[in-house]
Amino acid sequence: MDSIFVKDISQPTLLLDENKCRSNIEKIYSKVKSWGIEFRPHFKTHQSKTIGKWFWDLGVRKIAVSSLKMANYFMQSSWRDILIAFPLNLRELDEILLSAQQINLKVTISDIFTLEFLSRLINLPLDVYLEIDVDFYRSGFDINNHLLIEKAIKIIEKSKFINLVGILAHNGNTYFCKSSKEVINENKKFLSKLFDLKNFLISLGHNVILSVGDTPSVSICDDFVGVDELRPGNFVFYDVKQFSIGSCETDNIAICLVVPIVAIYEQRNEIVCYGGAVHLSKDSLILDGIEIFGLVVEIYDSEWSEPVEDTYVKAIYQEHSIIKTTKEFIRKHKVGDLIGILPIHSCLTAEAMKKYLIPNSVWVDHL
Amino acid sequence: MDSIFVKDISQPTLLLDENKCRSNIEKIYSKVKSWGIEFRPHFKTHQSKTIGKWFWDLGVRKIAVSSLKMANYFMQSSWRDILIAFPLNLRELDEILLSAQQINLKVTISDIFTLEFLSRLINLPLDVYLEIDVDFYRSGFDINNHLLIEKAIKIIEKSKFINLVGILAHNGNTYFCKSSKEVINENKKFLSKLFDLKNFLISLGHNVILSVGDTPSVSICDDFVGVDELRPGNFVFYDVKQFSIGSCETDNIAICLVVPIVAIYEQRNEIVCYGGAVHLSKDSLILDGIEIFGLVVEIYDSEWSEPVEDTYVKAIYQEHSIIKTTKEFIRKHKVGDLIGILPIHSCLTAEAMKKYLIPNSVWVDHL
Repeated sequence: MDSIFVKDISQPTLLLDENKCRSNIEKIYSKVKSWGIEFRPHFKTHQSKTIGKWFWDLGVRKIAVSSLKMANYFMQSSWRDILIAFPLNLRELDEILLSAQQINLKVTISDIFTLEFLSRLINLPLDVYLEIDVDFYRSGFDINNHLLIEKAIKIIEKSKFINLVGILAHNGNTYFCKSSKEVINENKKFLSKLFDLKNFLISLGHNVILSVGDTPSVSICDDFVGVDELRPGNFVFYDVKQFSIGSCETDNIAICLVVPIVAIYEQRNEIVCYGGAVHLSKDSLILDGIEIFGLVVEIYDSEWSEPVEDTYVKAIYQEHSIIKTTKEFIRKHKVGDLIGILPIHSCLTAEAMKKYLIPNSVWVDHL
Repeated sequence: MDSIFVKDISQPTLLLDENKCRSNIEKIYSKVKSWGIEFRPHFKTHQSKTIGKWFWDLGVRKIAVSSLKMANYFMQSSWRDILIAFPLNLRELDEILLSAQQINLKVTISDIFTLEFLSRLINLPLDVYLEIDVDFYRSGFDINNHLLIEKAIKIIEKSKFINLVGILAHNGNTYFCKSSKEVINENKKFLSKLFDLKNFLISLGHNVILSVGDTPSVSICDDFVGVDELRPGNFVFYDVKQFSIGSCETDNIAICLVVPIVAIYEQRNEIVCYGGAVHLSKDSLILDGIEIFGLVVEIYDSEWSEPVEDTYVKAIYQEHSIIKTTKEFIRKHKVGDLIGILPIHSCLTAEAMKKYLIPNSVWVDHL
């Protein structure tokens, strides 16, 4: 395949730094391995067979995804132990049961109604995780509602086909933390509740595994004793949001949206780039009291700089991004130059762009 | 082609109501025609050759797009007068000049630096619009900076190849209006400034046309005397944002994301659906003091209901949407049912989904 050079880019393009990405993968892989915990990385962030192979080469064999579509995609490239870590979609049940005949496919049950339907509909064996909601109120059985969890267990016990493998939870609350210390405390509180539940289920004779894993806690915390499986996903790329929480440094961020400068406004200290919400997605965060939609980097031949000081994406439209910057940065650039934007939320940027370019090399696939 | 039935949908799917869409198009087309103004609809909202044909069949022959990529897409289906209403991307200049040899392609110049480069680089004729920024501060020559605009005019006068066709502005401030009255006032203020500039340019011997057109003002206002061309785009579908401004009623909204219910939480009066930020995009707005990410409708055989009362998308994740609703709505639904979400910003939802389904009929293309 011919190489594609950064200097030839003329439209918004998502660069992937292979070294940073592999190093992020290796770091978390080694950590989880050293703890003696099963690693089941979530592949929804990258959705790439090529990047999946970088995990495979380290010895990873179990993955999590967030849809049947993603499961089918990774089944095509030799993955044989896949958890769909998303509330079971009953409208896809027939296809799921079919796939579960071919590989070790596991599903997630997140409410009592789905479990009741499943127990009536199913006539083939299926491995399930029960999703537990630990005070985040997105999806899962409320951890404080023991009666409902017991009811779920009884339905499972009665079923010939539903095989309870584990309990699964996502600590979305770490995303609201503002420091490593907050993440550590949040994670402790979260795990302690789950340990109680796990012990309760074991006392009922269900030797379930406990599966957790958000990127902030796995990146920051060191104590997961009692956890059986970790499923972080975002760490493969990280992003400005993870940096703001303390999960990574900015130079761990492995993807960067390259955009052409299409207008410069000296009086406002602002630059307009071709590259907007349809490329970057619209997530934002508050950094030092200001809402930002991305940090800005210089683009070099095959890499990018650290974020430029006092410079950020201040607004984003369908195809435009508006960059607030300094006179110095403006002096160094002209219309037609390329600059880079580090995304706030890399999962959504990757999904919007649908492919990655390794600088001066080749395109990398995305589902 | 075989029909695709709504009842067979198992994944998030973007429905298109052809009648509503055609009626939106016809209404605005008739209005603009009755005013004797040139109609150049912006095709960035739908990005569909099929929907483009619905305009063509009414007699529309001029369109606006927001990238060369989109221009090329519509060139493939017989459009021959296309304005790229986005700051000229110098990195695509060669391809733009090539396309301009084949069709009547026009570009937008939004800052002095691009104009200076263009005047030096160009050796083939090119029709340009000058973009004027009327106190919105996104892109365009600041309307209050007459010196800079005069400087631009002098550069154009000196160039053998740059042909000034018109001035173009987008009133992004109407999107912050909260009533029809506010939109009417905002539009008056905006146009009055542009009329002064147009007269000034005519006094310099440049018989430019004035091109404006945001969906709120074109939907709400009646007085565009003095405007030569209107370029609204969003009206083809409308959305909850336009409804909140007063541009449309909810039953004019022509697209709807169908999503399967994957979990129900009675105690919280919340429903979780498969369908998230990667399907709907992440725009939100404040309605009655609450941040919402979409309104919820019932899905019938080939259409959808008016928005369900006291029901809205309260949060959105990569693949999940969380719907706040009433006990009554929950009583009527079960996991596995389909419901619909009216998008906050239809342009971004269409771009995320990349294709439309006409209920019980066929798929419609998106770039």
